[in-house]
Amino acid sequence: MPRNSVPGADELLNKHFKVLDKGFVRLVDYMGGDHSIVQSARVSYGSGTKSLREDKGLINYLLRNWHTSPFEQVQMTFHCKMPIFVARQWVRHRTARLNEVSGRYSIMTDEFYVPDEARIQFQSADNKQGSGESMPRDYSAEKVSEFSGDQGQLYGHYESMVEEGMARELARINLPLSLYTEWYWQIDLHNMFHFLRLRLDPHAQYEIRVYAEAMAECTKAVCPVAYEAFEEHILNSRTFSRGEMMVLRRMLRRGGWNEDSHLGEVTKMSSRRKGEFVSKLWNTPKEKEKSPEITPVERDTGPD
Amino acid sequence: MPRNSVPGADELLNKHFKVLDKGFVRLVDYMGGDHSIVQSARVSYGSGTKSLREDKGLINYLLRNWHTSPFEQVQMTFHCKMPIFVARQWVRHRTARLNEVSGRYSIMTDEFYVPDEARIQFQSADNKQGSGESMPRDYSAEKVSEFSGDQGQLYGHYESMVEEGMARELARINLPLSLYTEWYWQIDLHNMFHFLRLRLDPHAQYEIRVYAEAMAECTKAVCPVAYEAFEEHILNSRTFSRGEMMVLRRMLRRGGWNEDSHLGEVTKMSSRRKGEFVSKLWNTPKEKEKSPEITPVERDTGPD
Amino acid sequence: MPRNSVPGADELLNKHFKVLDKGFVRLVDYMGGDHSIVQSARVSYGSGTKSLREDKGLINYLLRNWHTSPFEQVQMTFHCKMPIFVARQWVRHRTARLNEVSGRYSIMTDEFYVPDEARIQFQSADNKQGSGESMPRDYSAEKVSEFSGDQGQLYGHYESMVEEGMARELARINLPLSLYTEWYWQIDLHNMFHFLRLRLDPHAQYEIRVYAEAMAECTKAVCPVAYEAFEEHILNSRTFSRGEMMVLRRMLRRGGWNEDSHLGEVTKMSSRRKGEFVSKLWNTPKEKEKSPEITPVERDTGPD
Amino acid sequence: MPRNSVPGADELLNKHFKVLDKGFVRLVDYMGGDHSIVQSARVSYGSGTKSLREDKGLINYLLRNWHTSPFEQVQMTFHCKMPIFVARQWVRHRTARLNEVSGRYSIMTDEFYVPDEARIQFQSADNKQGSGESMPRDYSAEKVSEFSGDQGQLYGHYESMVEEGMARELARINLPLSLYTEWYWQIDLHNMFHFLRLRLDPHAQYEIRVYAEAMAECTKAVCPVAYEAFEEHILNSRTFSRGEMMVLRRMLRRGGWNEDSHLGEVTKMSSRRKGEFVSKLWNTPKEKEKSPEITPVERDTGPD
Repeated sequence: MPRNSVPGADELLNKHFKVLDKGFVRLVDYMGGDHSIVQSARVSYGSGTKSLREDKGLINYLLRNWHTSPFEQVQMTFHCKMPIFVARQWVRHRTARLNEVSGRYSIMTDEFYVPDEARIQFQSADNKQGSGESMPRDYSAEKVSEFSGDQGQLYGHYESMVEEGMARELARINLPLSLYTEWYWQIDLHNMFHFLRLRLDPHAQYEIRVYAEAMAECTKAVCPVAYEAFEEHILNSRTFSRGEMMVLRRMLRRGGWNEDSHLGEVTKMSSRRKGEFVSKLWNTPKEKEKSPEITPVERDTGPD
Repeated sequence: MPRNSVPGADELLNKHFKVLDKGFVRLVDYMGGDHSIVQSARVSYGSGTKSLREDKGLINYLLRNWHTSPFEQVQMTFHCKMPIFVARQWVRHRTARLNEVSGRYSIMTDEFYVPDEARIQFQSADNKQGSGESMPRDYSAEKVSEFSGDQGQLYGHYESMVEEGMARELARINLPLSLYTEWYWQIDLHNMFHFLRLRLDPHAQYEIRVYAEAMAECTKAVCPVAYEAFEEHILNSRTFSRGEMMVLRRMLRRGGWNEDSHLGEVTKMSSRRKGEFVSKLWNTPKEKEKSPEITPVERDTGPD
Repeated sequence: MPRNSVPGADELLNKHFKVLDKGFVRLVDYMGGDHSIVQSARVSYGSGTKSLREDKGLINYLLRNWHTSPFEQVQMTFHCKMPIFVARQWVRHRTARLNEVSGRYSIMTDEFYVPDEARIQFQSADNKQGSGESMPRDYSAEKVSEFSGDQGQLYGHYESMVEEGMARELARINLPLSLYTEWYWQIDLHNMFHFLRLRLDPHAQYEIRVYAEAMAECTKAVCPVAYEAFEEHILNSRTFSRGEMMVLRRMLRRGGWNEDSHLGEVTKMSSRRKGEFVSKLWNTPKEKEKSPEITPVERDTGPD
Repeated sequence: MPRNSVPGADELLNKHFKVLDKGFVRLVDYMGGDHSIVQSARVSYGSGTKSLREDKGLINYLLRNWHTSPFEQVQMTFHCKMPIFVARQWVRHRTARLNEVSGRYSIMTDEFYVPDEARIQFQSADNKQGSGESMPRDYSAEKVSEFSGDQGQLYGHYESMVEEGMARELARINLPLSLYTEWYWQIDLHNMFHFLRLRLDPHAQYEIRVYAEAMAECTKAVCPVAYEAFEEHILNSRTFSRGEMMVLRRMLRRGGWNEDSHLGEVTKMSSRRKGEFVSKLWNTPKEKEKSPEITPVERDTGPD
C-alpha cells in the first residue's frame, strides 16, 4: 500500500520559498502528519484516549501537557540556502541532521548577502543584541555599497588563489560571513517547534527569522492541526514565574488592573523585571490587542 | 591548581539518600556549579553581561529567557537503586548517560519493592494515570502480602533455574517489574531541570517522585542559586495559552476575579479546559496560597 | 508533486513480520532511500563527487570512509510488539524516537513470552552473558510449563486488583518481564546500522536478534544499495588493533599463516586475546568460509 | 569527602596550549578518569568482571568490544579560541555542549588567523579536500600579506560601522571566516574519542588537527590508561571489509604477501579500492613501520 501523504504538503514539495536576496527554503520530503501524531499517541495511552475522540482535541491536549514524544514522529527535510552567519546560528539546534556544502571539496560560488538599505539599522538602545531605527538614507546607501565592494574584492582574491592552484581549504579562509552556503536539513516536529519558538520571536535576528517564517509555512502544510496548537500553546503563550503569579493573583483579588503605580504597590520587582512582567501581560503582537496605556518593554531572547 | 569544588556538595558525596523500602540515591561526582554557569555565560555575552553584575541576577536572567546552554556546563553523576518499573520511566530521559547492572551477566539479588499498606490506593477517578484514596486497611494488608509472596515464589524459581545451569539471560525473564536494579546515571543541569519538572510534579508516579526529591536535594547542594531560580521560573511557573491570556486580560480590565460564573461570561472554553485554567490560576501547592472558593482540578502530566 | 517512494518498501507497509511467539514488527512509514543518501551527499561534496558517477559507488565510498551524515537523511518508523526484557535492551539506543503503551493509563493485555523448549539452554561456558547447549528435554518441558504457570498466576492477581479498583500504576508492578508491550519506534538509517551491527551479532540475546532480523528485512527494502554496503563494510568487516596489525604484517612477510604455534612465535598476546585475533581472522559465519584447523573462539559483545 | 581527582590533570588545569598564531586550548575542568570507567563498568557487569581483575585489562576489553557506555562517564570542559572556519567544522560534533561568544552581543576583537608562509600549499592532486606541496616562496609571502591586508580592511570597516552606531548583529556580517572566536566546550570521553579519531587523522584539515592534538594531550592527562587503549584499538586500528578479508585470507593461505601483481591475481577490486587496501595493510604513520616497496595511497576522510 502507498504511504500516507498530506495533499497540501505534496503541493509544496520542491517549490522554492525565496528568502533574503539570494536564499531559499524548499521542502524536500516529509514523513507523517497530524494523523501520525494521533496514531502514536493512541499507542501510548490506549484506552486513556477514549474520552478525547477528536484528533484536534487530542493534539491540543498533548501539546499543552508536555506530552511531546508523539510530535517526534513527524519528520521534515528541507533544502536551504542562507548566509554563513545565519547558518552559524541555525546549527546550534543540535537535534537536526544536516549535510552542508563543503568549502574543502567544492569551489564556493560568488553569492553574498547584501542587506537592503532599509535594513541598515542602528544598534538597539534597550536590547543588547538587537537592531533599532533605520539609519540615514545616504549613510545606508554608502554602507550597502561598501558591503558589496568588499565582497567582490574578497571573492576576487579567493578566485585567483584557487585558479593559481592553492588548496581550496585554505583559499576560502578569508571569505566573509555573508557568503551563501547550502544544506539539506532534517528535523522532527517537536524540535521544529522549539526552533520556531526561538527563531520566530521578534528578537531573533531578522535574517534568520525570515527563514523560520518560510519553514513555518511548510510546517503548517504538513500538519495544520498541530501547527495551530503550537501557535496557541507555545508561540503565543506566556509563562509567569512564581513571584509573578503572586502579583497576578493579588491584582485579580483586588479588582483588576489599574495603572502602573498600582503594580508598584503590590510588588517589589526591579524596574527591569517589572517591565518584563507588564510586557508579558499586555504585549500581544500577533493579535493587535494592546492595552493603550502601556508601552511594552521587549524581552531579550538570547545570544547566538 | 585544584578544581573548583562546592563545599556543600562535597559533604554529600557518597552519602546515601534512602528511597522507598530498599532503594537509594547517592551523588557520586559533579562538575561545575553556579560559578561555571556564570563563567560560560560571560563567554557568550561578553560585554553584554556588564549590567548584570551579580551572579544571582545573571543566573535568573538566563533561566527566565531560555538561555539554556550555560546550564549544560554543570554535570552530576548519581548511583541509584530502584525497582525496574521505575527505571523504565526514568530511562525515557534520553539525554542521560547510564550504566545499569546486566541480568545477562550477573545474578540478580533477591530484592523487590513491597509497597507500604498506605500506598495501596484506588485508581484515581479524574486522572487516568493516577492514584486516589487509600484502599481499605484489610484489603491493603492482604495485597501487600500477595505482592511479597509472588515475589518470593518467582525469585525461588529464578534461583533454582540458575543453580540448575540455565542461561541467566533466560532464567530472568519472569522476574517481576518490582525487582530492584542499579545504575550509574549522569546528566547535565539543563536536562536535570527538565527531569525534575516532570518527575517532581504531583502527578508523576509516587515511586519515581521520591527519587526526584532525593536528586533535587543533591542538585540544590551543587548549585544553590540555579536551583532557586529553577523553583521560581520553571517548577512553580504557570504557562497560559493565547486564549487563556485573552480571558486573563479581560478579567483584569473588568475588575478582577469574581466567581466561576463570571469566567463563563467571558470565555467559551470546554469545562475540562476551564478547570485546567482555574487550577493554573489559583492552585499553588508549594505556597499554600489558595483561593478558598475554588476546587482545583488537577492537571494530567502524561503517561509513562 | 508526489513524494519519492520506493516500490519494494511500499509493498511491505503494514505487513506484519511475526517475531517470537506473540510479537511482531511492521514498517509503518519511511522517508528517503538510496536516492536521498546520494542527493544529500552531492550537496556536501559538490564537484567532489564527479568522479563517483554511480550511486552505488558513492554509497559504498561514503560508508567505508565514515561519511555518515547522508545516511541520517533516511528515516523508518516501525510498530513493534515485544517482551519487556527485550524492550529494556532496545531502549538503550537513545537516538530513536518512541511511543510505548503506558501501564499507568492502560490495562495490560494477557500476553507473555513463553520460550520454546529448544530455547531452554544452559549458561554458556565461555561467554558470561550467553546461552550454550539445550537442556534435557524433560527439564525444558517442565520449565516452559513453570514459566507459563507463573505468568498466569501473576496476571490473575493483576487482573483482580484492577477489577477491585486498585490504581493501575500500582497493580502492574509485579507483572513479569516476559509481558508483551508495544511501541512506535522511529530511527534514521545511520543509527539503524549501529543497532543492527550490535543486535544481529551472534552474541546478542536471541530474543532481540530475531527482531533485528525482521527490521533488517525492512531496511533492505527501503534502501537495498545502502544495506548491501552495510553488510560489506560494517556487519561483516573486521577491525584489527595496532598490535594485531603488527602480527598480521609479520605473518604476511614471513610466508603466510602456518599454525597456531607460529602465531605464538611472533606475538606475546594473552591466550584470551590470541583467541579473539584468530577468530577475527578466520571466523566468517555468513560466508561459510572457515579455516578447518581453527576452532573459532567467540567474541563477547557486551551486556544489556 | 572530596571528589576523586587526577593529579596529572590538575597540573594542566588552566594552562594554555598555544595553537596556531593566536588561538589556544585550555582544560577548564574534568569529571572522572580511568577509575570512573572501571567503576561504572563494574556496576554493569557485576560478577562478570571478576576475571578481569586489573583496571587496564578491563578498559582495553571494554574498548575493543564496543562497550562504550562506561566511557561516557568521563567529562572534560575546554576553553578554546580558534578561527571561525575551524569552529564551523568543530560544531558538527553535535554531542558536545558549548557556549560561544556572540557577535550580536559583543564587539568582536581584531584577531585573525594568518597562515605561515609554509602553510600556503597547492591543492592536493589525489585528495579532493586536501593540501599538497608548499607553493613558491615569493607567491606565499605575497598571499600571506594579501590575507592580512584584507583582514585589516574588513575589520576597519566593521569598527567604523560599530562606532557610527550600526547594530552589531549587522555590522559583523562581512567579517572573514579567519576571525577568531572563543567558546567553552564540554564533551564526554566516548564522544571525545570519536572527535579525535576524525580530527587527528592525517586528512583532517591542518588547522583543526592542531587543536585536536592539544586536546589529545589533555585527554591523556585525565585518563592515561583509556587514552592508550584508544590509540591501540581505535586510532591506529584498521578495518577490513568482507571482500578485503577474503583477499587477506587467501594471501595468508598462499604463503604471504608477495608483490602487487600477486594481489591482482586474487582480487578484482578497482584500482582505487586496491590502493586503499594496500595502504591500510602497510601504511603505519605512527609506528614508522613501512613496507619499502609499497607507495601508500592515502585515504579520504570526508568533507566539512
